[in-house]
Amino acid sequence: MARIYNFSAGPSTLPLPVLEQVQKDIVDYQGAGLSLIEASHRGPHYSEVHEAAGAAMRKLLGLPENYHVLWLQGGATMQFAMIPMNLLQGGKKADYTLTGSWAKKAVADAKKLGDIALAYDGSQENFTTLPAASDVGARDDAVYLHLTSNETIGGVQWHEWPDVAVPLVCDMSSDFLSRRLPLEKFGIIYAGAQKNLAPAGVTVVIIRDDVLEQCADDLPAYLAYKTHAPKDSLYNTPPVFPIWVARLVLDYLDENGGLDWVAGLAEERSGLLYGMMDRHAGFYSCPVAPHCRSKMNVVWRLPTEDLEKQFIAEAKAQGMDGLKGHRSVGGCRASIYNAMPVEGAKALADFMDEFARKHG
Amino acid sequence: MARIYNFSAGPSTLPLPVLEQVQKDIVDYQGAGLSLIEASHRGPHYSEVHEAAGAAMRKLLGLPENYHVLWLQGGATMQFAMIPMNLLQGGKKADYTLTGSWAKKAVADAKKLGDIALAYDGSQENFTTLPAASDVGARDDAVYLHLTSNETIGGVQWHEWPDVAVPLVCDMSSDFLSRRLPLEKFGIIYAGAQKNLAPAGVTVVIIRDDVLEQCADDLPAYLAYKTHAPKDSLYNTPPVFPIWVARLVLDYLDENGGLDWVAGLAEERSGLLYGMMDRHAGFYSCPVAPHCRSKMNVVWRLPTEDLEKQFIAEAKAQGMDGLKGHRSVGGCRASIYNAMPVEGAKALADFMDEFARKHG
Repeated sequence: MARIYNFSAGPSTLPLPVLEQVQKDIVDYQGAGLSLIEASHRGPHYSEVHEAAGAAMRKLLGLPENYHVLWLQGGATMQFAMIPMNLLQGGKKADYTLTGSWAKKAVADAKKLGDIALAYDGSQENFTTLPAASDVGARDDAVYLHLTSNETIGGVQWHEWPDVAVPLVCDMSSDFLSRRLPLEKFGIIYAGAQKNLAPAGVTVVIIRDDVLEQCADDLPAYLAYKTHAPKDSLYNTPPVFPIWVARLVLDYLDENGGLDWVAGLAEERSGLLYGMMDRHAGFYSCPVAPHCRSKMNVVWRLPTEDLEKQFIAEAKAQGMDGLKGHRSVGGCRASIYNAMPVEGAKALADFMDEFARKHG
Repeated sequence: MARIYNFSAGPSTLPLPVLEQVQKDIVDYQGAGLSLIEASHRGPHYSEVHEAAGAAMRKLLGLPENYHVLWLQGGATMQFAMIPMNLLQGGKKADYTLTGSWAKKAVADAKKLGDIALAYDGSQENFTTLPAASDVGARDDAVYLHLTSNETIGGVQWHEWPDVAVPLVCDMSSDFLSRRLPLEKFGIIYAGAQKNLAPAGVTVVIIRDDVLEQCADDLPAYLAYKTHAPKDSLYNTPPVFPIWVARLVLDYLDENGGLDWVAGLAEERSGLLYGMMDRHAGFYSCPVAPHCRSKMNVVWRLPTEDLEKQFIAEAKAQGMDGLKGHRSVGGCRASIYNAMPVEGAKALADFMDEFARKHG
């Protein structure tokens, strides 16, 4: 098998040893005579996986006891609704940072449910920059300040965190588990799994005790955090397969060096690509301000759209796929999540070099 | 590998050829150099699967063009909320049939959002029977009449459908795709996939055009059917893996004879078990009224709880697992969904016979 370098923004590349483990176990789970995806979610096989996934998550993040780890469904999109439904009923206030396509969706849902103000609005700059973290404030009576830690489409990423009196609520879908975090700042961290953690179909919600206590009591069952937290995410049938794979990925990350390891890799991969843009600065251009360039989703333009098409097609022919920028912004994008081998970023940087020399 | 007979109520047994196909493709999807679970949900590999899954569903059910097939997340539990949120805003009316544990949850959520009346209340009979379909009515101004086609825990199943002027909205989680349906009666059919269709993590919602048109416009994005239907369930990242497996299961059902084939198998499997209860009527007892006994979840009691424990343990030792009744009702339960081989039901019936002769 010739494995390609898959730069897709999500779903995205997974560690090969994890895929091979799944292949080994998918028909007969560790000699149990059935697949794990056929096993009762209250039986011994899945229970072990569920507990191990939660424990591995806690260990990797260094999560204090006053945080709950929930495994939910519906993606970050569903959290855009659940967060204000749980925390803003009755027109309570929250502040949002409008930093790109994903933040925009979070704001749109929140506006239907609460009194929302923008602590930052990047629309004038076409979402190509972020403010200094120290310049971001929140209203005194806001329940939380919402951030999108990394904008998958625009390629901007917070490298520092605002220092505000209210808890941060953060969509970390596209850079979850890619670095250490000052956990005490966060009331809720949520992430669709299909970038750094697992296949699509599970959303991790990490919620602090005091924030959970403020959540609404009268919501329909699935929509209430207070349904899921006391039941350890087993109120109803959880999405067994992606949680199983998440457990394997978490173990893999832990065995290889944890968050410091992946943070180093992210530095290395993104450095190769941004470095190559600098070397061919007249040919490649990065629309994103240097202080907030993403280490997960690297975006750039070529001199013409025709050259971009040619670049993407030739890269694909050389086994590097998924480099087309999001249709809303065009250009090129390389998503270089935890499971992307550094060799993949090297191969892409080499190709960028060669392509610029030929066409620049 | 010694494959067991897995009578789990859900997640539950899947067709072995489907599991083997997944095993073959899970690391390198048909020579593409990546796993399908790593591929972009907007790329060619998953797009083909997504379209094929929808087409196979339409073909198997014989679904007219005025129905949409949605692939959502959150299980039937999430639909308990979404249905009234979409259809009952502003205190609109709907009628529900209270037929067991699952209907109870549907009613509880609906009561938070609309004006709900019970068209049937089986609590006095401890949910061991259903009314005649012809005895069930609905208020003239109800938006829909809600049914739970099969109660997974209680083991009751509707074998005929009420004849009312309003659309039926039906939770078919545990008998979806097990028989032909008079589709024109249904405004919404929904089903968590983890019984007859696929692994946990995807919920099928089949919604008729005229019902979709009545749905609320101002809901948060994920919670609105009007978000998902025009985007063919690709508004956000779908749960790729269970939809892939659903496609394989749907193809498998179609190739083997479709709904008539599975309905015949359900008749045969359930007949073996209910027949054995009749043969040892003093030893086994079925709490469910004969006219509404489920062909998917067969429940029965033994003379004592000790004998039940012994029965379940000995069956397990012989490779028949998952026979413990739900903790809320006790006793024994065999879930015999589409993928349970008839040989599994035969083996269980033989064991019931032997056990009754020994202990009866």
